[in-house]
Amino acid sequence: MQKNYIYGKNATIEFIANFPEKVITVFTTLVDLKSKFQNHPFLTKIVNKDDLDKLLGEKNLTHQGIVLEYKQFNYTPFKDLTTKNLDNKNAFYIILDQIHDPYNFGAIIRSAVLMGVDAIITLDHNQVEITPTVIKASGGTAFHIDVCRVANLGNIIKLLKEEGFWIYSSNLNEDSQNFFNVEFNTKTTLILGNESKGVGDKITKMSDINIHIPTLKVIDSLNVSVAAGIFMFDIARKLQKI
Amino acid sequence: MQKNYIYGKNATIEFIANFPEKVITVFTTLVDLKSKFQNHPFLTKIVNKDDLDKLLGEKNLTHQGIVLEYKQFNYTPFKDLTTKNLDNKNAFYIILDQIHDPYNFGAIIRSAVLMGVDAIITLDHNQVEITPTVIKASGGTAFHIDVCRVANLGNIIKLLKEEGFWIYSSNLNEDSQNFFNVEFNTKTTLILGNESKGVGDKITKMSDINIHIPTLKVIDSLNVSVAAGIFMFDIARKLQKI
Repeated sequence: MQKNYIYGKNATIEFIANFPEKVITVFTTLVDLKSKFQNHPFLTKIVNKDDLDKLLGEKNLTHQGIVLEYKQFNYTPFKDLTTKNLDNKNAFYIILDQIHDPYNFGAIIRSAVLMGVDAIITLDHNQVEITPTVIKASGGTAFHIDVCRVANLGNIIKLLKEEGFWIYSSNLNEDSQNFFNVEFNTKTTLILGNESKGVGDKITKMSDINIHIPTLKVIDSLNVSVAAGIFMFDIARKLQKI
Repeated sequence: MQKNYIYGKNATIEFIANFPEKVITVFTTLVDLKSKFQNHPFLTKIVNKDDLDKLLGEKNLTHQGIVLEYKQFNYTPFKDLTTKNLDNKNAFYIILDQIHDPYNFGAIIRSAVLMGVDAIITLDHNQVEITPTVIKASGGTAFHIDVCRVANLGNIIKLLKEEGFWIYSSNLNEDSQNFFNVEFNTKTTLILGNESKGVGDKITKMSDINIHIPTLKVIDSLNVSVAAGIFMFDIARKLQKI
């Protein structure tokens, strides 16, 4: 099984400060840290530089004397969401239709957690998984939100509609409305599309409303994680989550 | 002098579609493209795969048979901004206090151009420059905005105040206001800070108002390019730029 490592002073110290319960072991050359971490639930092992290089399987990675192994990420089964959010009148889900870049995925997760989004739903294929790079880009927040992987987004949208969700697709087609003028005041699912292809046609047709962010049209669109952030801030505000 | 190359089908075709005047030469193994580009002002040279590998100086880069050389990026001297925007009552500038990640810088530029920001001001040190990676992350939009490099942000803030700009710093200190409740209705400069250190103390003290995006405080802050996007959308809307 592949192990999950984060390395480097800032990244590891920040991870420990925020998610001590997700840390399995800290491997470090920095003897001072042993006493600093003594009240934490994880192991701290003093090792030498060569041991750290071996752990990471590559020399000259900028580990700065500290590597941390964290627990496997656990995806949430989709059916658990229904149980959790059945009576949640301002439930807010994000569906990602094939995000390929781990930095975009991580930044979307980070924004979602900070805006009180209740779950992120992704495909179990054609979608970057929760890798160490994604965890790092999320600022470690991935552990604070339900992330579901599903085989078919169409089926999930049907189920969400039956549960009373309104489905909003980020889309620039001619029916698309300026999102800022849209009221978001009920169970909300926001769909964001792939970095180059956007939201797929079938998914678009299944949505209740297509929405877009008004911009000067120099190029087609904002970076997907930036667009996600702008949408989420407004929706979270209107749903009184922040 | 280092040459500026973009490679790969999507990246080059998109660049050509949006910024044909910035292209010097297209080098390609794809003979069909020669006729497609015949009305464009740049040269199209049919070459073989080895030539492309040599151009990029590295084998196995995913150039997909096309490499494009584009013109050097020209920074704008700060004094030129005054001339351009003296009577612009809703002028909107961004100051970046040490952005280190080229993807963040590129995404900020892309959002700024799409939101009608008039100029981006950065330090000429401790700040990522406009590299090919930044250009790519900006979707090529970097050529559509004035970017200034200056030696001292403090001096620039003083000059901007003399020109009637209000200076807003992104900051989480105790005086910081929820940006969404702030009116932005005059010449505006938004300052965004470094990915880990935020806006420096001296710059913060020189600002008229500290502002922040309200979030659930799981971790301290959003990704800087996402935060920049959320701020810029709201300010651009209030300044009636979009």
